[in-house]
Amino acid sequence: MAVQTSTRLERSEVEKLVREVLTQRLRGQINPPPVRERSAASPRSAGGPPNPLVVNVSARHMHVTPTDVETLFGPGAKLTKLKDLYQQGEFASEQLVTLVGPRQRIIPNVRILGPVRDYTQVELSYTDGVYLGIDLPLRISGNHEGTPGITILGPKGAITINEGVIRAERHVHMSTADMAYYGVKDHDYLKLKIDGPCGVVYDHVKVRYHPKVVLEVHIDTDEGNACDLDSATHMELVKE
Amino acid sequence: MAVQTSTRLERSEVEKLVREVLTQRLRGQINPPPVRERSAASPRSAGGPPNPLVVNVSARHMHVTPTDVETLFGPGAKLTKLKDLYQQGEFASEQLVTLVGPRQRIIPNVRILGPVRDYTQVELSYTDGVYLGIDLPLRISGNHEGTPGITILGPKGAITINEGVIRAERHVHMSTADMAYYGVKDHDYLKLKIDGPCGVVYDHVKVRYHPKVVLEVHIDTDEGNACDLDSATHMELVKE
Repeated sequence: MAVQTSTRLERSEVEKLVREVLTQRLRGQINPPPVRERSAASPRSAGGPPNPLVVNVSARHMHVTPTDVETLFGPGAKLTKLKDLYQQGEFASEQLVTLVGPRQRIIPNVRILGPVRDYTQVELSYTDGVYLGIDLPLRISGNHEGTPGITILGPKGAITINEGVIRAERHVHMSTADMAYYGVKDHDYLKLKIDGPCGVVYDHVKVRYHPKVVLEVHIDTDEGNACDLDSATHMELVKE
Repeated sequence: MAVQTSTRLERSEVEKLVREVLTQRLRGQINPPPVRERSAASPRSAGGPPNPLVVNVSARHMHVTPTDVETLFGPGAKLTKLKDLYQQGEFASEQLVTLVGPRQRIIPNVRILGPVRDYTQVELSYTDGVYLGIDLPLRISGNHEGTPGITILGPKGAITINEGVIRAERHVHMSTADMAYYGVKDHDYLKLKIDGPCGVVYDHVKVRYHPKVVLEVHIDTDEGNACDLDSATHMELVKE
């Protein structure tokens, strides 16, 4: 059994600590959220796949319409770029919002990913869904039929959407060359095998074709944390 | 594209909403935590395993020494049973604590599981670790060498432990009959295969033998949410 020591804290120290934490939380001063929490890539080898396999964890985020940007951030507001994402033209914006769920719990500092879309959508993990009290449907981006809504607070206004809150299905962005190499077509499924101390195989990774994308798997934070993507020693896509 | 409507909220409504949420958060009135968040079981069949395979998600929790119970809850305090757990003699107590991490973020309402131990230990998911700012080591319960510490607040006092904060390794509790059926011995590893919409195979599920346990796999909330255990259609343990 490991030796363990516990230190009693004085009441005044505890009160000071709690006061500091709560003050920071109310002011929203604690840590801006990451753009992508984790990322891992497998190198290319001769005779191997045409492109390196990149796996990115999508932290909770949202997409917005131009109209909703103005409601949340004020008349004339536009998304401003904080950082480019791996897919060309996609970016993490500087704009952050607060989500208010049906259990009256909030998640602050949720980042908007640009460019603007013709729909407003919130992508959360099941851990977020349990916290907020939302039973998240598993969907591919843009498929909102029958999905739940949410209230979103920005610095200049708030909106309530009637639908558009989802857990994103695991998916892999593929170009023609990638689909040819893996022997799949758009909307097929592959397995993602991740070796390491928390090794895992994820079934049902949906192929999403676009001629101009770079090969990239997206999983959410629950999936990224379940396999501890940082410690992955090998990753590959295999046929289901 | 789905039709979507966004509703503007009046500033007064937003202010009221935020005030209500923050007041509830500060008072800790929002929702007691679940004891186990999810559970799933595979039925037995003729010629199959000697015991049904039960998979339980361990929500964040802690174990405590009798001394630390008294520091946190007052002189003479003892753990009181809220609910029996699946393993005989184990129980979720009525006692809750608040964790304060190194980034000065807090997680309230963390449940103590009894009976008391001869060590104090906090078991968190990686999602919790990222939130608190703790780089969690992957350990089997009780193995604390070189693990990080944390500050723990109770209603009557607080402690700071110098070690004992871990992510629990995926594991399966097995009796002699279970080990014989699966062809494994104590500390061996198996894979846990979970079929369903978020199907997954978890590698490195460690066998933990005790003559009196019932067959039970423990995974954490990241793992339970990554595979959406609620929607599992089939589960089995297979050789690595």
